[in-house]
This record gives sequence, structure tokens and C-alpha cells, in this order.
Amino acid sequence: KINADRLWDSLMEMAKIGPGVAGGNNRQTLTDADAEGRALFQKWCEEAGCTMGLDQMGNMFARREGTDADALPVYVGSHLDTQPTGGKYDGVLGVLGGLELLRTLNDLGITTKHPIVVTNFTNEEGTRYAPAMLSSGVFAGIHTQDWAYAKKDAEGKSFGDELARIGWRGDEEVGARKMHAFFELHIEQGPILEAEGKDIGVVTHGQGLSWIQVTVTGRDAHTGSTPMPMRRNAGLGMARILEKVEEIALSHAPHAVGAAGHIDVFPNSRNVIPGCVVFTVDFRSPDLTVIEDMEARLRVEGQVVADTMGLKIEFEKVGGFDPVAFDDGCVTAVRNAAERLGYSHMNLISGAGHDACWINRVAPTAMVMCPCVDGLSHNEAEEITKEWAMAGADVLLHAVLETAEI
Amino acid sequence: KINADRLWDSLMEMAKIGPGVAGGNNRQTLTDADAEGRALFQKWCEEAGCTMGLDQMGNMFARREGTDADALPVYVGSHLDTQPTGGKYDGVLGVLGGLELLRTLNDLGITTKHPIVVTNFTNEEGTRYAPAMLSSGVFAGIHTQDWAYAKKDAEGKSFGDELARIGWRGDEEVGARKMHAFFELHIEQGPILEAEGKDIGVVTHGQGLSWIQVTVTGRDAHTGSTPMPMRRNAGLGMARILEKVEEIALSHAPHAVGAAGHIDVFPNSRNVIPGCVVFTVDFRSPDLTVIEDMEARLRVEGQVVADTMGLKIEFEKVGGFDPVAFDDGCVTAVRNAAERLGYSHMNLISGAGHDACWINRVAPTAMVMCPCVDGLSHNEAEEITKEWAMAGADVLLHAVLETAEI
Ligand SMILES: NC(=O)NCCC(=O)O
Ligand SMILES: NC(=O)NCCC(=O)O
Repeated sequence: KINADRLWDSLMEMAKIGPGVAGGNNRQTLTDADAEGRALFQKWCEEAGCTMGLDQMGNMFARREGTDADALPVYVGSHLDTQPTGGKYDGVLGVLGGLELLRTLNDLGITTKHPIVVTNFTNEEGTRYAPAMLSSGVFAGIHTQDWAYAKKDAEGKSFGDELARIGWRGDEEVGARKMHAFFELHIEQGPILEAEGKDIGVVTHGQGLSWIQVTVTGRDAHTGSTPMPMRRNAGLGMARILEKVEEIALSHAPHAVGAAGHIDVFPNSRNVIPGCVVFTVDFRSPDLTVIEDMEARLRVEGQVVADTMGLKIEFEKVGGFDPVAFDDGCVTAVRNAAERLGYSHMNLISGAGHDACWINRVAPTAMVMCPCVDGLSHNEAEEITKEWAMAGADVLLHAVLETAEI
Repeated sequence: KINADRLWDSLMEMAKIGPGVAGGNNRQTLTDADAEGRALFQKWCEEAGCTMGLDQMGNMFARREGTDADALPVYVGSHLDTQPTGGKYDGVLGVLGGLELLRTLNDLGITTKHPIVVTNFTNEEGTRYAPAMLSSGVFAGIHTQDWAYAKKDAEGKSFGDELARIGWRGDEEVGARKMHAFFELHIEQGPILEAEGKDIGVVTHGQGLSWIQVTVTGRDAHTGSTPMPMRRNAGLGMARILEKVEEIALSHAPHAVGAAGHIDVFPNSRNVIPGCVVFTVDFRSPDLTVIEDMEARLRVEGQVVADTMGLKIEFEKVGGFDPVAFDDGCVTAVRNAAERLGYSHMNLISGAGHDACWINRVAPTAMVMCPCVDGLSHNEAEEITKEWAMAGADVLLHAVLETAEI
């Protein structure tokens, strides 16, 4: 069993870096705070005897040797970056849970046949640079590195430049590493485990996602002197499309969700009818045909709104991944571990996207989930208990031990 | 008659300061560009023989002496600040039209009984600091100077600090000057004069305005893993209220308009259900009871939307002025001038707010309007012809001459 106090202390120590405004974190990717968090993680890994690797996407790899020089490593990990108003556990638990696993093996003097590597993937959250899970996506060959480097944040700063600026662009070719298996521990970010009173979610699938960036163009005009019939109000167009997004998602309930988290209004002046609004619609479902249907309806119904109002509308897909079925063997290893340790568990479909969803394309992969209070995440008030964290890390440890072989 | 080429050249020269991105201007109040525009205006006024005054709100006063030492001055002017994506004429025509009037009197060697003063009022647009017409409002005793100084822009910089920073905070007590009369020349910013084929709008009234800032609070949560029934989506709440704003304004058509130009979404991340949206509703009507009705309905219907969706809603009035009836004598002077000069004219109700609306509280006031292409304003594509500018400035000259007496 892992050392729950030590894991908790590390979580609280990491949370001091990039503090939020309401008890959570703002440690967005490729910021100075991200660099500071990385340095702390590296220090801890080195203290635990690991050798560090860093690839050209800034993905970090802390390696503990195994007994068999030819055996591929078992990988564990997640991400240390957060939302602008994020919690202390989303991603961080998976990275520091991996570190705790190594520390526990050190304490117990256990050496595995396969090496074990703890990873921190760059820009999982996707707030500063869409899409989410950008660097695990490059690792898995989904995106090219050049494409990722060229991504711009809201201020026009490119991913490649910012990665170099914070000093965490490595030399290692991205995706060159081969994995025996990959396990990611993560908080559920939803309400099911808590509601069902289960300690552990055995994640069998992940739902798919579509991010469509919608640009509605009308005409900047004076809010006072422009008669109502002459207006081409892009803000009102956006409002009507948001209502459609809700309708479309609800029409597939409970097998789909939809919302827009990102909305930018131009010129954003109280007495100017908005001439342009850019917003991103996030549709998700475990069923690919449902995602495709929602996307298609957004395009058709959005066009109708625009045509009716004399607006121009454009759609650009800025992120997406298909629903995922995790590896049977790895899923079974997670379930067996929970069973052996006597933790209550249930199968889960992940509502969120995770680095594991991409790594699953190139290595046998599974996820362990633990509950979070009120299912709340992407909120500074995100909270878990030390016991939940312990159960998750214990299951991670045992699933990895079974896979890495003693 | 004024010198149309000289007026036009000055307009084009001023438009070089704080250029926009699409042929217009971004010379927002209390920016470095604003300071540069002020310096150019001051240089021109001094070259025309004026003595300059500057009050504690940064309002500028260029004075040409009259023959009667005891006579109160006749004031003309408007504002040099622009929208973030503004045009070259909104405000600027009124200030430089006033300057052209002085230059013409110099050319012709005419001295008036009353002094003539050309003004540039600070922060008419209200984009960086709400409300609009802030400094003419302080001049007219509507707002206190301390209240205005404490206003913060989106970056938290205060009006008072920024006014000092750009070096245009004067010593003169605001509103101490007494005016014999005030005339403001402005582009219509609406489509009526062009549609009716008239050169001149004789502005008899101005419609009133209400700016209600609405804050909708829900809960930041993950867009993927939060079930639809658990969401408290402040973005969707905002969308539904924007639809109500449209309905409410249309229910009073054609005697009211309504829209929201300013919308800020928090935390504005693609995969976070918005926990908070702040937006400003702009309602206008020439009829005070209509404005009051729209405000009341917004509060009631907004509350219903919020209650239905489990959201919190707050309303704050951040700007407003009642409908205005301009001074009969000044209005007649404008109409007589147009008539004398042979320009076609019609009575108009101003759809926009103007410094003249506040000055009307402390001095006999009227406005002269000229057409603008397609009624378009608060848009970089705002356009007028040299002939329209000439007609407006000619009428301004003659209305002022009648009032200032030769
Ligand atoms: N786990 C998580 O919040 N990932 C961010 C990507 C997503 O939006 O699902
Ligand atoms: N004239 C003008 O655009 N003034 C700004 C104040 C308003 O919104 O009416």
C-alpha cells in the first residue's frame, strides 16, 4: 500500500505553485508557473532515484530501472497543467500518484522486471492551446509536431516559442519510446462514483468529443441610432445558436452533452452591436454516430439562424477524438487490483478526455478513477478526500505491479 | 461659408492618430493616442490664435475673444475619443468643425460680441470607462468628479490615474464655466437623413438610455463529465436573456431599441461550463416610460430565466440618461441657418447620446447633424462626404454667428 500522507503532502505542495483566486490553481500550460511545477516534479523524481527524459513537446519521463534490460517500460502518469480556474487534483493526482508508486517501491525495496516510467504530458487541458491532450496526441502520432508548435494562444504566442521560453523543450524525438502498457489515475470529474458509493472506477471506455469553433459575423453598428430592422447582431446570433446546442445535446439525453465554454465578442463595447462573435461548441458522447449527428445538426441549424438574421457563419473543427475502448488486459489488471485490495469498484465511461485516450492508440492502456466531491471539476472548488486518493494510488500500484512483474 | 477642403484635410490628419485595423480609428480615451490627438488639436487652436483652458476632467477649451468683455461665450464642440473600432468622424467632426468655424472667422476678419470656445470633452464614448459622456456629465453636475476618477477600465486602471498619466489633467474646476449657449455638430450615426435625402438634421430631441450590467452566476464545471441536469450554465442563461432583450425592445417597436454590446464570459475555457457571465444591456427610447418599462421587464424576465436554471442574477445600472428636449431658441437658430444657406433639412431625434445631452442641463443647447453613409457608425467603415461635412459646418457657423452676434 502506498503512503497516503506523503501523497497528500506532495499534492498540497504542488498546489502552492500557480495558486488560483479561490483555493484552486491557475497553472496553465507553458507559463512560468508550469515551469516551476515541472522543476519541483523533476526534483522529487531525482530524489527518488529516477533518470529524467524530456521530449521535443516538453513531455517529461521519470524512469526507474527494471531487472530485464530488454523489457519495455510500464508507463504511468497524467498532466500537471491546470485550467485557468482549475482544481488541485485534475491531472496532478495521476502524476504524483505515479511518483508515490515509485517511492513506495523504493521503501519496500521492490524491483520490477519492466522499468517503470512516470510521465507528465504537456498541455492536456487545451485552454491556452486547443486542442486538449495536445502533446500526448503528438506522441501517439495523431498530430504532427509542426502543427502543434504553430498553435497560437489568445495573445498570439505560439506553442513552440512558449515551450522554448520556459526552458522545457527537450531533444528527444516525440513518440520514439515504446510502452509495454500505460495506466492513468485520474479523478472522475463527474458524480457517478460518489453517488454510487464506490471507491474505484474501472474505466472501460472514454466518450468522444468534437470541438467546433463557430464564427458569426454581422456588422458593428451603433446600439442607439441603428434601427432594429437594420441590425446584423452577431451577439444575438450566438445566443440563438447556444440555445440550439442545448436542444441538440438534450435530444440525445442521457447519451450526450453539449455546451460552449469559450465565447469572445468583438469589439465588446457597450454601445456597439457586436460585429463578430467567436465561440467553441463542445459536444461529447460515447457513441460516434451521436457526435456526428450533433456536429451535422449544429452546422445546419447554425446556418439557418445565420441566414435568417443576415449573418455570415463559419465552422472550424478545432479538436476532436473518437470514443475509446481501453485495452481488455489493462482494464482487467485495474479491476483485479481493486478486487484484491478490497476496494468497492464499478465500470465507468470517462466523461472527460485524457492523455490515456491517445496513448491507447499506441500501447495497451487503462485508467483508474477515484471520486471527487459533487462531481465538480474545472472549478477551483474541486475536492477529494485523502482516502479516495489513497485507494486510487493503491489500485494504480497493484495494476502496475501485476503488469510490470516482480 | 467654411473652407471645406481645410476641414477635410484636418479630419484626415487627425485620423492618422490612433489608426484602426480597417481604415477607421482606435483612439480610445486616455490612451497615448488620445494624448497625441489632443496635442494636435491644441497646436491647431493656438495657430488660430486661441487661448487654451483645461479642466480637472481633461475637458479642453479653445477660446477666441469677443468684443464684449462681459458676454458669456458661445461654446461649440464634441469629442476626439473613438470606439475601439470606431470611425473618423464620430465626435471629431464636431470638434474640428468648431475649429474650422474659428479659422473661417479669422479669414474673414469677423469678430463676434460673445467669445467663442471650442471644446473637446473627455471620454464621450464610454467604452473604456462607463458611462458614456462621462466628462460632460461631470461638467453638468450629473456625476461627481471623485466618482468619475474612481471608474476602472477592464485592466483595473482608474480614470483619474490614466488622465494624469497621459498628462491632460488640468487645474480648472469642472463646470465652473458658464455658457451663453452650446452647439454640437455630429454625424447622424443612423440612416434617416440619407434615406430622406436631406443635408441637415435639426436635432430637436435626444432619446434616453439605460445601461444595465447583468451578472449571471452559475458554476464552473467540466463540459464533458458533468451530466446535463447537474449543470448551472451561466452562458446559456446569458443567451436566454439576450433573446428577452430583443423581444422586449421589439415589443415597443419602432419607439425603442435594445442590444448587448459587451459580454465577458468566465473562465472562458473551451471545456469549462461558464460559471459567470457579465454583460451590459443597452436600451433606448425617446419615451422615458418605455425605458422604465424595458428596465423593469429585463429585471423580471431575467430573474425568471435565472430561477428556472438555478442561476444567480444581479443587475447594476452603469449608465443612463433621460430623453432630452433641446432649447427652442438654439434649435431655431440651427433651422434658420440651414434655411438661410439653402440646405435641405428636417427635424431629427438623436438616436445616440451626445455631450450636448448633458450640457443642455446647464446651458441652452442644440445639435446639427449631417448624414453618414448607410447610417453606419461605431464601425471603422463609417463614412461621410466632404459636401455633407461642409453643409454641417456651414450651418454650425451660421447658428453660432446668430447666437454670438457680430
Ligand atoms: N481531464 C480533463 O479535464 N481533460 C481536459 C480535456 C477535456 O476537455 O476532456
Ligand atoms: N455619439 C455616440 O456614439 N456617443 C456614444 C454614447 C452612446 O452610446 O450613445
